[in-house]
Amino acid sequence: MCRLLGYAGPAIALERIITRPSHSLLKQSQHAHEAKLAVNGDGFGMAWYTGQDAEPGLYRDVLPAWSDGNLPSLCRVIRAPLFLAHVRAGTTGGTSRSNCHPFVSGRWSFAHNGQIAGFSELRRALEADLPDHLYALRQGTTDSEILFLTMLDEGLDDDPIGAVARAIARIERMQGGGAPNRITCVLADGSRIIGVRHSGDGHAPTLYVSAGVLDHGGRALASEPLDGCAANWTALPEGGVVILSADAMEISSLPGLADRAAA
Amino acid sequence: MCRLLGYAGPAIALERIITRPSHSLLKQSQHAHEAKLAVNGDGFGMAWYTGQDAEPGLYRDVLPAWSDGNLPSLCRVIRAPLFLAHVRAGTTGGTSRSNCHPFVSGRWSFAHNGQIAGFSELRRALEADLPDHLYALRQGTTDSEILFLTMLDEGLDDDPIGAVARAIARIERMQGGGAPNRITCVLADGSRIIGVRHSGDGHAPTLYVSAGVLDHGGRALASEPLDGCAANWTALPEGGVVILSADAMEISSLPGLADRAAA
Amino acid sequence: MCRLLGYAGPAIALERIITRPSHSLLKQSQHAHEAKLAVNGDGFGMAWYTGQDAEPGLYRDVLPAWSDGNLPSLCRVIRAPLFLAHVRAGTTGGTSRSNCHPFVSGRWSFAHNGQIAGFSELRRALEADLPDHLYALRQGTTDSEILFLTMLDEGLDDDPIGAVARAIARIERMQGGGAPNRITCVLADGSRIIGVRHSGDGHAPTLYVSAGVLDHGGRALASEPLDGCAANWTALPEGGVVILSADAMEISSLPGLADRAAA
Amino acid sequence: MCRLLGYAGPAIALERIITRPSHSLLKQSQHAHEAKLAVNGDGFGMAWYTGQDAEPGLYRDVLPAWSDGNLPSLCRVIRAPLFLAHVRAGTTGGTSRSNCHPFVSGRWSFAHNGQIAGFSELRRALEADLPDHLYALRQGTTDSEILFLTMLDEGLDDDPIGAVARAIARIERMQGGGAPNRITCVLADGSRIIGVRHSGDGHAPTLYVSAGVLDHGGRALASEPLDGCAANWTALPEGGVVILSADAMEISSLPGLADRAAA
Repeated sequence: MCRLLGYAGPAIALERIITRPSHSLLKQSQHAHEAKLAVNGDGFGMAWYTGQDAEPGLYRDVLPAWSDGNLPSLCRVIRAPLFLAHVRAGTTGGTSRSNCHPFVSGRWSFAHNGQIAGFSELRRALEADLPDHLYALRQGTTDSEILFLTMLDEGLDDDPIGAVARAIARIERMQGGGAPNRITCVLADGSRIIGVRHSGDGHAPTLYVSAGVLDHGGRALASEPLDGCAANWTALPEGGVVILSADAMEISSLPGLADRAAA
Repeated sequence: MCRLLGYAGPAIALERIITRPSHSLLKQSQHAHEAKLAVNGDGFGMAWYTGQDAEPGLYRDVLPAWSDGNLPSLCRVIRAPLFLAHVRAGTTGGTSRSNCHPFVSGRWSFAHNGQIAGFSELRRALEADLPDHLYALRQGTTDSEILFLTMLDEGLDDDPIGAVARAIARIERMQGGGAPNRITCVLADGSRIIGVRHSGDGHAPTLYVSAGVLDHGGRALASEPLDGCAANWTALPEGGVVILSADAMEISSLPGLADRAAA
Repeated sequence: MCRLLGYAGPAIALERIITRPSHSLLKQSQHAHEAKLAVNGDGFGMAWYTGQDAEPGLYRDVLPAWSDGNLPSLCRVIRAPLFLAHVRAGTTGGTSRSNCHPFVSGRWSFAHNGQIAGFSELRRALEADLPDHLYALRQGTTDSEILFLTMLDEGLDDDPIGAVARAIARIERMQGGGAPNRITCVLADGSRIIGVRHSGDGHAPTLYVSAGVLDHGGRALASEPLDGCAANWTALPEGGVVILSADAMEISSLPGLADRAAA
Repeated sequence: MCRLLGYAGPAIALERIITRPSHSLLKQSQHAHEAKLAVNGDGFGMAWYTGQDAEPGLYRDVLPAWSDGNLPSLCRVIRAPLFLAHVRAGTTGGTSRSNCHPFVSGRWSFAHNGQIAGFSELRRALEADLPDHLYALRQGTTDSEILFLTMLDEGLDDDPIGAVARAIARIERMQGGGAPNRITCVLADGSRIIGVRHSGDGHAPTLYVSAGVLDHGGRALASEPLDGCAANWTALPEGGVVILSADAMEISSLPGLADRAAA
């Protein structure tokens, strides 16, 4: 179980979301309220879009967020209109930078909280199912990285929501159906943040959406409400998808999966 | 607040105390029971005496104990009749190896859980009070390292218990008395482990002693009982000192301080 | 012996100076031409001014520049009109982030290549000479950090060149004169880069200045010419000071020291 | 290009081979004489057999050997009759502990200097060729780790020399023959050290064998002679295999490959 967030809106210093709110991601790394494991000390990562480069900046380290001396400075001076961040509590894969989220490919970035059921038995088949150019991108050993590569294979660029749904469906077919996967994830492509919450057993990790704009005018997604940023926070239901951009927020259902997921 | 332990007895693989017991130091690093801060993820360290070298081996890293891939292997193959280990939750000083415990000088090693009250104001005076050869050993920025250097200055080699008491008294004189210091520490010199528990406000961190021998015949001190190692564990009272060796355990009071400390 | 650089000019991605030129700082970290030690693998650091914050962003890590996976991404997306960078080959002080350059205080940043002669004997006196508020900033164990704190004590804000000269003079007085110090350093305050080259024995590490503007219109200082950035590079003589800003470059002599330094 | 060594003989402190000789592995990490790349700063690792455990102890870190503060202490107090060590200059795979040598499985440890030609195109086929239980062990992204897993698949336990030859032959078949692979590696199983030198183009990295016993009575293999340990050092020819144990040294040829390799 990890903690994650995404932001879209006016360009702000990353610290205004990641480190400063009274229940910021940094605080959640030490004292998560709504997670099975209260500590997320197996690494930190963030991907941000500057508006000048299509590909996001990426910073990941294996130190806990609270003890990385570079983090406060980077979050103070880096400003971005769109970014993701993640604190990790390792389930599969050792502690290394290549197992830290977000994972990035081209203009896409991805962070995940949850797990693919029975991953150690499934890893090889999932990897074998990737085309060569995505197989070659595999750097670590996590289920999350493969989930992202599978989404890319299903066509994130052309139909992101459909690709997410098809990637999950592909995995469930390999599992023979009925597997208790728990997938709460955020994706970004430079113009919007996509949040998804899906499970096979009704226990997908929480994901909250700022129903209105935050104090500084943007919108956010987070594993737990970022108290101190105002805005009402509402829980995304299982099977739900949310698309955030600087000026809009739209909630829908994951196509073809919503009916199968426990709410 | 940190977690620490010391062991003296038959040579055993370090894992039998540090990683394997059901409430091992490794477990305490993630789920401390009797600490204000439940997580001790700001580094790990251990010092061990092989019997062949007067100076202990020293291993310290800034990763949380639970995510350091080297630790399980080192603890599995290194065997020692006497060792200390420590997991850190930083209070003063950033996360760096030079701020990780144990601190080592010659045959002495030292690990600390607690804090010197008002340390940031006191740091300079404490450093200025050290003789040149000890001042030159200062590597980090913690109160714990200075506490150790002050003990060395007070004569650890000739009279360890007296040196501990005089070091605490020196600090309290500089503070003008009455400061709410909290000092629970362990020292080792290759032949014995010394545990001390002292505070100015009755809130010294806990320290437990194995009243009998453990399953494998040794004795231990730990911030919390190492369930799964058997032996009865008794709490050391404030103002108390315990000396452990392979075949004896002796509890006494810190000279000249016991009367001033709240029990 | 380390390698360092400073840039002032139009805002550019840091990579255009730090990682991309054919003899970039990154390349110099592996194959320095004009250094006694060809490898600078004991850490990397950079400080950059965004124009929006008075205090610079700071990033330092103990990994060699060439193996830090975060560096290429940070240097690709971070743009700044003024920045310093440094690769370290440790002489005094262990490998830790707090011993990596640049050192930062308020709006000032500082990176150094060289050494204070007889530093281990002089360390205590130099630290004792600092006022409390600067003493409290001491985080590591290098001579470079103390040199910076001494410059701050001598009044960097009001008279930077004078403060540099007085700091060096203070150290030389403590040494009794004639010590073979070697000090090649760069400072920045957000509006200009100051480069200094001084020694007591005529062997100050090299420092080159771009005599004209680089391909992208800025100016730079570097331990070795950044081939691939064009502009003519000229060596700063010993005893020389150079001040770079976005639109000017001025070379002078360190007051009161130039006459004593071997050219 | 990396540097590596192996030792078999009386139990000695690891430092007597790894850090103390005048041309020790530590020195070779900074100033290799017979390597294309003079610096080996992308990590360090060692595996040692205590005689009490079948599986070796394993220590790996991404810091350069010369800046890892734990290394001198570990090498001073750990004594072993058989060990391998390796300093890395990364060719394929990023800098992470899981890409550092030695690789270990059961009682086998393995360190490699060289490269599989065209590895990025070959990676997927080589991984696909592994049985499930070995595929599951894959932690990193290097060619060296796959080479080791392929050797395990070919039966290291029953016929180590044959397994090495068959693993190389399997790779060469996949390459279609004639590939300029360069494989200089050492393996250990707790009772002996095996050194192999093979290439497809006559440019396998060097491997030297101590023809007689060293000052402390053991034998060693190393990328470059460990001056300061005495004993005559002889170069292993390409296509050669050497087996070292505490009391014997035997040189032979890699079966079925010697004829194809340039000498």
